[in-house]
Amino acid sequence: MKEAYVIGVDYGTESGRVVLVEVSTGKVVSTHVTMYKDGVIDKVLPNSSIKLDLDFALQNPNDYLLVLSSSVPEVINQSGIKPENVIGIGIDFTACTILPTDQNLVPLCLKQEFKNNPHAWVKLWKHHAAQEEANKMNELALDRGEEWIHRYGDKISSEWMIPKVWQILNESPDIFTEAEYFLEASDWITSKMTGAIKRNSCAAGYKGTWHKEKGYLSSEFLSLLDTRMTDIYSTKLSGDVVASGTKAGNLTSEMAELMGLPEGIAVATGIIDAHAGVPGTGVTDPGKMVMVMGTSTCHLLLSDREVYVAGISGVVEDGIIPGLYAYEAGQVAVGDIFAWFVDNHVPTYIIEEAKRLNKSIHQILEEKAEELRVGESGLIALDWHNGNRTPLVDSDLSGVLVGLTLSTRPEEVYRALLESTAFGTRTIVDTFRNNGIEINQLYACGGLPHRNKLLMQIYADVTNMEIKISDSTITPAIGAAMYGAVAAGKENGGFDTIDAAAKIMPKLKEDSYKPIKENVLIYEELYKEYIKLQDYFGRGENNVMKRLKQIKYSQIENHAVTLQK
Amino acid sequence: MKEAYVIGVDYGTESGRVVLVEVSTGKVVSTHVTMYKDGVIDKVLPNSSIKLDLDFALQNPNDYLLVLSSSVPEVINQSGIKPENVIGIGIDFTACTILPTDQNLVPLCLKQEFKNNPHAWVKLWKHHAAQEEANKMNELALDRGEEWIHRYGDKISSEWMIPKVWQILNESPDIFTEAEYFLEASDWITSKMTGAIKRNSCAAGYKGTWHKEKGYLSSEFLSLLDTRMTDIYSTKLSGDVVASGTKAGNLTSEMAELMGLPEGIAVATGIIDAHAGVPGTGVTDPGKMVMVMGTSTCHLLLSDREVYVAGISGVVEDGIIPGLYAYEAGQVAVGDIFAWFVDNHVPTYIIEEAKRLNKSIHQILEEKAEELRVGESGLIALDWHNGNRTPLVDSDLSGVLVGLTLSTRPEEVYRALLESTAFGTRTIVDTFRNNGIEINQLYACGGLPHRNKLLMQIYADVTNMEIKISDSTITPAIGAAMYGAVAAGKENGGFDTIDAAAKIMPKLKEDSYKPIKENVLIYEELYKEYIKLQDYFGRGENNVMKRLKQIKYSQIENHAVTLQK
Repeated sequence: MKEAYVIGVDYGTESGRVVLVEVSTGKVVSTHVTMYKDGVIDKVLPNSSIKLDLDFALQNPNDYLLVLSSSVPEVINQSGIKPENVIGIGIDFTACTILPTDQNLVPLCLKQEFKNNPHAWVKLWKHHAAQEEANKMNELALDRGEEWIHRYGDKISSEWMIPKVWQILNESPDIFTEAEYFLEASDWITSKMTGAIKRNSCAAGYKGTWHKEKGYLSSEFLSLLDTRMTDIYSTKLSGDVVASGTKAGNLTSEMAELMGLPEGIAVATGIIDAHAGVPGTGVTDPGKMVMVMGTSTCHLLLSDREVYVAGISGVVEDGIIPGLYAYEAGQVAVGDIFAWFVDNHVPTYIIEEAKRLNKSIHQILEEKAEELRVGESGLIALDWHNGNRTPLVDSDLSGVLVGLTLSTRPEEVYRALLESTAFGTRTIVDTFRNNGIEINQLYACGGLPHRNKLLMQIYADVTNMEIKISDSTITPAIGAAMYGAVAAGKENGGFDTIDAAAKIMPKLKEDSYKPIKENVLIYEELYKEYIKLQDYFGRGENNVMKRLKQIKYSQIENHAVTLQK
Repeated sequence: MKEAYVIGVDYGTESGRVVLVEVSTGKVVSTHVTMYKDGVIDKVLPNSSIKLDLDFALQNPNDYLLVLSSSVPEVINQSGIKPENVIGIGIDFTACTILPTDQNLVPLCLKQEFKNNPHAWVKLWKHHAAQEEANKMNELALDRGEEWIHRYGDKISSEWMIPKVWQILNESPDIFTEAEYFLEASDWITSKMTGAIKRNSCAAGYKGTWHKEKGYLSSEFLSLLDTRMTDIYSTKLSGDVVASGTKAGNLTSEMAELMGLPEGIAVATGIIDAHAGVPGTGVTDPGKMVMVMGTSTCHLLLSDREVYVAGISGVVEDGIIPGLYAYEAGQVAVGDIFAWFVDNHVPTYIIEEAKRLNKSIHQILEEKAEELRVGESGLIALDWHNGNRTPLVDSDLSGVLVGLTLSTRPEEVYRALLESTAFGTRTIVDTFRNNGIEINQLYACGGLPHRNKLLMQIYADVTNMEIKISDSTITPAIGAAMYGAVAAGKENGGFDTIDAAAKIMPKLKEDSYKPIKENVLIYEELYKEYIKLQDYFGRGENNVMKRLKQIKYSQIENHAVTLQK
C-alpha cells in the first residue's frame, strides 16, 4: 500500500498553519503558515473608511481560503510527496467565530450590497460587543431556572453564538433577515470543501448551547429574547450536528483544484483549536486532563459522566472524543501575566544580563527564580490580572501580591506569579474532584510548557501529579490531521477511530515532570494561603476589587464628560 | 551691637554637617560636611582583622571630633565673619548612639587595652545585635505590668540604651566594669565641649526610658535583668537630665582652639536629629505635627497632655520644647519603598525616557503618575515593606498590592505606593485623634517633601489638611543652631526662649499644599479600603504574612543546615 499522508489546518487568530503528517508514524513532514491579509479587523472595515465600535473584532473569510490556496500547495511542494498520497484533511478553528452567508454559503460581507455593513463580516471569537445580549440571556436563564445554563457554569459568554447573532438582529436587522445561515467559521470552511453543511459538535456544544440528548435552547426561551429568534435553530442555524472529526464529506473538485489535492478525499468536521490539542497530545481516555497553555490556559478533561460543575466553561458529550463527555475549564490569563511582568516591571540590570548572555528576559528570570527554594521569597500572589473564569466566573477580580519587602527581587515576584497560576490550576483540579469527577493524569501542550521548565515543575509540585508534555509545539494541528486520518478511514490508509490514531500519531516528550516530595509539602501550606485569600477577595468577604473598579470607571467617565464640555 | 551668629552641628549616620546661621534673620551663611573616616563599622574593626557579628553597627568617636576640627573652621572661613561674632553652638545627633568612656570621658575604644574589643566602640543607632535583650525587657515589663512601657507604645526597641548596655554586660563584662560612663554620643560631644556631663532630655526620654516626674526604671526591675545593673542609673548612667537646648555649659579653651572659636561661648545640650526638625520648621506649639520625611518618616507632635497611645514610639515631657509633651510616631519605610521600586521594578522604556530628558527616574514616574486621576489605577497598597511601627508595632508585616491587571503600568504602581504611605500617615493622625490628642496643622521637612510635589499633594488630600513645608533641606541643623542661640541667651545676642527663636529663624516655603476637594472625597473611599485591608492583614484576621515569613525563614535555615552537612 502507498504511504498515506494527512493534512491538518490550524486556523488561529492572526494566521493559518497547515501541516502535512505521515499517518503511519505521526511525523510532521512539512508545515507552512499564511498570515491573514486583513488580520483582526477592529478599527476600520477593509478598503473603506467605516469605523468600528469599541469591542468589535472582525475578520475577512477570504483570508481563510487564502490559507488553503497558499499553504496547502506549499506543504505538498516542500515535502516532495505526490498529492495523491494525501488521504484526508482535518481542521481546527478559533471559536466562537461566526459569519452570515447566503444559501450558497457566500459570506454576506463579500457581496457588494453588504460589504459596508460591519455585521456582514466574520465576528471573531474575541468580538466582545454583544455583552449586553449575553447579560440579558444569563439573567433570563437564571430567572427561569433554565437547566441548560448549569452545563456552562451558570454563565454564558458574550463571545458565544446566540449573543452574537442577537446583536446582529438588534443592530442590523437587514443582515439578520438576509442571512440564510449563521455558521461557525470552522463549519463554513468544511462546508465549502464538501459542498454540504455539517456543524461540528465541539463548537455547537461549547459555544452554541447544543446538547446531544436535549438539543438546543427551547423556542419558548428564544421567543422571550426576540420573537424573530423563535425558530432560529430550524432555519438560520439549521444543519446536522455531528461529532468533531466525523467525515463531513468529500473534497469538491473546485476546492481540490484550489488546494492542489485530489478530488474526493475525506474532509473531517472541524473542532475548536484548543480542543484539538486533546487527541493531539494522545489523550482519548476518561480521567485525563489536558492543559493547553499559552496566553491563557484551557483545561480539557474527559469523563464518562455528566455533572454540573460551578464555574466551568462547559461540558459537552462528543465534544472532543465520541462517546465521552468533555469538560472545559479555564484560566483567563497565564502567559499574559508573565509577559505583562516582563514588559513593565523588569529592571535594566536583568535586561542587560539577558543581552550579555544572549538569552531572553524570561530565561534569565527563570534561571534566577529556579535558584530560590519553595517559599523562600515570602510572597504569594493571586493570578486574577484578567479576572477569574474557573471556579469564580468573575471578570471584576484583579491581581494581588502579598509579602513584599524592601529586599524583594524581580525574580521572586516572577516566581510568585508562576506559582499563582499553578495554584489557579490546582483550584480547577480540586473543583472537578470535589464534584466527583476523576482526574488521574495531567498533560500539557501549547507554547509555555516548551519554553518554561520551572513553570511545569511548579505545576507538578503544586498539583502533586506527574505532567506529561506534548512533544509538538503545534499540537492542535496534529490533532486536526488525526481527525483527517479518521475521516479517511482504515480502508483508505487512515484509522477507524480516534483512539486508534492516538496510539500511533501523537508524540510525548520523553521526560515528564514528577512532583518533588519536599516541594509538595511546602506548596500544600502555600496553597492553603492561596485559598484563604481566594475566599476573602473572591467570594464576597471583601469586595474591595469590585469597589476599586467602580471608582476607576467612574473616574474615567467623569474625566471623559469633563473633556467633552 | 555686633551681628550675632550661631553654629549648628548635625551628626548623621555617614557624616557631620556644620552650618553657620545669622541669628537676626535665620539666614544660612555657610555650610560644610565632613565624612566620617571610618563611616559605619559593620564588618571589621578599623586597623585590625577583628570581624564583627551580624547586626553590629559601630562608629569611631574620633570621627565626631573631626567634624568639629574640620567643618567649624571651614564655615567660619567661607563666611568671612570673625569668630568672635559666634555666640553659641547647638548639636543634633543620631540616637540611640552610645559609647563607654572612662572618668575623663575618654572613649574606651581609644585606649590601647580595649581597642580590639568591639564592645568598647560606639554602638550606632542601627546596631541591632541587642534584640534578645530587648525581647526579654519587653516580656518582663508587660508581665509585671510596668507602667512606663505604655509610654513607648508597649514595646521598646533593641536600638535603645538599656538593651545596648545590657548586651555589653552579657557579652563583654570587662568593658561593662571598666566603663565609668555610658553616654549618648550627643551628650559625650557636648560634655567634651563644656567639660561637664549633662544628659539631654530628648535622647534620655525617647531612648533611655527617662520621665521628667517619674525618673528612670526602678532598681527592682533592673535587678531582675541582672543584679549588676541594679544601680546603673546612679553610677554609669548618672548625670543631670536637662531639657534639650538648655545651656550645657561654656566652650572649654581646649575645644575652642580645636574648633577655631572663642572660649566660653554657650553650648546647648543636644537633641535627636529628627527632633531638631521641629523647631527647625518653626513649630513650638501644641496641635502641630511635623513629619520628618526621608527613607522613613518620623512624626513628631507637640501637646500639653500626656496620654498613653498604642503603637507610638514614645511620649516625653520636655522632649523637644520645654514645658510641652512631644509624641513620636513613625513609618518604618517611606522613601525606602519608592527607592526599592525604582531599583527593582522599573522597565527600560522609563529609564530611557529619563536619560533622554535628563531627568531622574523618580521625576519621570512622578510626572506620569501625576496625570492619573485619583483612583484611576484601580490599585491599593499596604506600605508595610519593612513592617509597621505606628499603630501596629509589628515588624513581621509585609507589603501588599491589590488590583493588578494586565494593563497596570509602572507609574500606577508607583502612585499606589506613594498613596499607601499617605494612608499610613493618616492612620497615625487618626490614632492620635482617637486618643483625644489634637492635630490641627501639618508640617513637613526632610528630603522627600523637597523632591516630590505629587507626594505632598497626596498627603494633603489623604489627610484633608494643609501641609506647610520647611524651606530648608537641612532643617535639623537649623534647629540645632536655634538651640545654640537660646543657650547663648538674649543678653548675648541670642534668644531667651525657643519660641522667640522660632519666630525669627526658621523659614517655610511660600507655597503650602492644600487639600483638593474632589480628591479628598475619593481618597476618603480609598482610605476605608486601606483600613479594611490593614485590619485584615495586620490585626489577626489573616496572619498570612507571619506564616509566609515562618516558611521563608525555615526554608533558609534548612538550606543552611544542608550546606553545612
